[in-house]
Amino acid sequence: MDKSTIAKPHDRLAEILGEDMAGVNTLIATRMASQHAPRIPEVTAHLVEAGGKRLRPMLTLAAAKMCGYEGDNAVKLAATVEFIHTATLLHDDVVDESAQRRGRPTANLLWDNKSSVLVGDYLFARSFQLMVETGSLRVMDILANASATISEGEVLQLTAAQDLATDEGIYLQVVRGKTAALFAAAMEVGGVIAGAPEDQVQSLFDYGDALGIAFQIADDLLDYDGDTEATGKNIGDDFRERKLTMPLIKAVAQADAEERGFWVRTIEKGRQEDGDLEEAMRLMHKYGALDATRAEANAWAARARAALDTLPPHPIRGMLSDLANYVVARVN
Amino acid sequence: MDKSTIAKPHDRLAEILGEDMAGVNTLIATRMASQHAPRIPEVTAHLVEAGGKRLRPMLTLAAAKMCGYEGDNAVKLAATVEFIHTATLLHDDVVDESAQRRGRPTANLLWDNKSSVLVGDYLFARSFQLMVETGSLRVMDILANASATISEGEVLQLTAAQDLATDEGIYLQVVRGKTAALFAAAMEVGGVIAGAPEDQVQSLFDYGDALGIAFQIADDLLDYDGDTEATGKNIGDDFRERKLTMPLIKAVAQADAEERGFWVRTIEKGRQEDGDLEEAMRLMHKYGALDATRAEANAWAARARAALDTLPPHPIRGMLSDLANYVVARVN
Repeated sequence: MDKSTIAKPHDRLAEILGEDMAGVNTLIATRMASQHAPRIPEVTAHLVEAGGKRLRPMLTLAAAKMCGYEGDNAVKLAATVEFIHTATLLHDDVVDESAQRRGRPTANLLWDNKSSVLVGDYLFARSFQLMVETGSLRVMDILANASATISEGEVLQLTAAQDLATDEGIYLQVVRGKTAALFAAAMEVGGVIAGAPEDQVQSLFDYGDALGIAFQIADDLLDYDGDTEATGKNIGDDFRERKLTMPLIKAVAQADAEERGFWVRTIEKGRQEDGDLEEAMRLMHKYGALDATRAEANAWAARARAALDTLPPHPIRGMLSDLANYVVARVN
Repeated sequence: MDKSTIAKPHDRLAEILGEDMAGVNTLIATRMASQHAPRIPEVTAHLVEAGGKRLRPMLTLAAAKMCGYEGDNAVKLAATVEFIHTATLLHDDVVDESAQRRGRPTANLLWDNKSSVLVGDYLFARSFQLMVETGSLRVMDILANASATISEGEVLQLTAAQDLATDEGIYLQVVRGKTAALFAAAMEVGGVIAGAPEDQVQSLFDYGDALGIAFQIADDLLDYDGDTEATGKNIGDDFRERKLTMPLIKAVAQADAEERGFWVRTIEKGRQEDGDLEEAMRLMHKYGALDATRAEANAWAARARAALDTLPPHPIRGMLSDLANYVVARVN
């Protein structure tokens, strides 16, 4: 596959959704502000400037447009989804004790953890106000359930880390919480607001779910198999942080007694020494864990593309299909 | 006023609302659980066991019953309100770096800040799911706005602390955020779900707002004027934490140049020495700041009682009126 072609879906989506995306950006800037508490616009301006790809709101707009929607609520829901995402980023940075995001210092570092927790709560409340304005109970039900899945997944990740009993089932649940639930809800609410038939709404959900899982598995694979310069990530960060991601889970599942001892020492007990990352990589290669992880990422991307088959033909449908290829292109 | 009489309103409310309160407790226990993340039931069980007076859900049930409501949604909304409250407590403990709440170690101490942040988010999501089940957009609008007021107030409190420019207007906004907004919303949604006429819904809101403000002003006064054994609080905690509450704001507003220097050193710069609390108390007494604060608490309690006048006669109405006396009885 030619990388120059598949690199384009995100930009093509941004172009076809340009007017609506401009509306989303304006709405985000307006609603992130606070009359009363000056700390809020300081923190949120930092986040808005940091930009990001705005992938999630684009999914909502894409789903709505593909289903023929022409009203104002898609823009509101797209901003809602971005608010939820931004709120979770603020709280994640506190939980992960992160110092950088998107190449800039995090809010918890620039201000403090308190501000990150409370401004995150504020953004949740703002997202909640925005979705109420759409007047759709169904939309609120979807986003309430997604919020519960997100926070359950985050708590699960907390307890699953450093625990060798974490299997692929638990990993998938964590991934749904941290990535796929909001991708799926973003697509689903776009279809719902457009009044799409039930089978299409289900397909939109399935696409978002599979896209999010493919994206996250690819991301976790890059931690062991990526180009540091291209990804901006250091090889082995997850190993050093003792995170049970798919490549490691696959190697642990096939470990013999001696190898198991290695994993217990480095992951459960956290007693890591020089050369341990190299040994971990050797074990992952020995059991084909990296290739198997790559295959899983590709399988989820294929599921995402397949979900689109039941939707009516539309230029956006092709871009979403290309997007599914794109999120795994980094590991192929 | 005989304290033995006015001490009873809370218990009388609990008795008349007994059946519904049992329903609320069952619902809270059921919905706080999580199938997937074992840390969640650990933390929430700790919170449920800690009990608390469940004042906020009682307000919702009281408002609904007083307005003749007999359906299931009042119980759901009461549990919703308690979830929102519990979520804010979890996040507050992280923000305040608290070690104790209700005489027990806080969740952030027993587990970690991460768990408190994420389980708080989970409870917000659960509250959101519960209110969606009532199917009332108006209720969601009220609770979305209350959530925004709460988090704005919390952020404002963060930046208002240690800042001598904090005046009574800012203080009132902080108090609305930390206490009154949820009291008011708890009352209001009870009336809305019962289909009460608009003027009554407004009165219910006004009662909750004034009750919350009276309660919080009394609480802040007790920090300087309370009986340590009865309140479980140490005299002067707010002074040591450099919080700008009403008694201090009133003394600062009337300070001469030398006194202002004292406040700048102790509150803004935080350079406190032995004897400073005594000097702060002397200045508050000098300007009658404690008595003026007491008068404000009583005035808000009177406003709460007056708001009830427009509501139809009902045994609960009398109990709510007594409750307004009760929250300020501690300082009278």
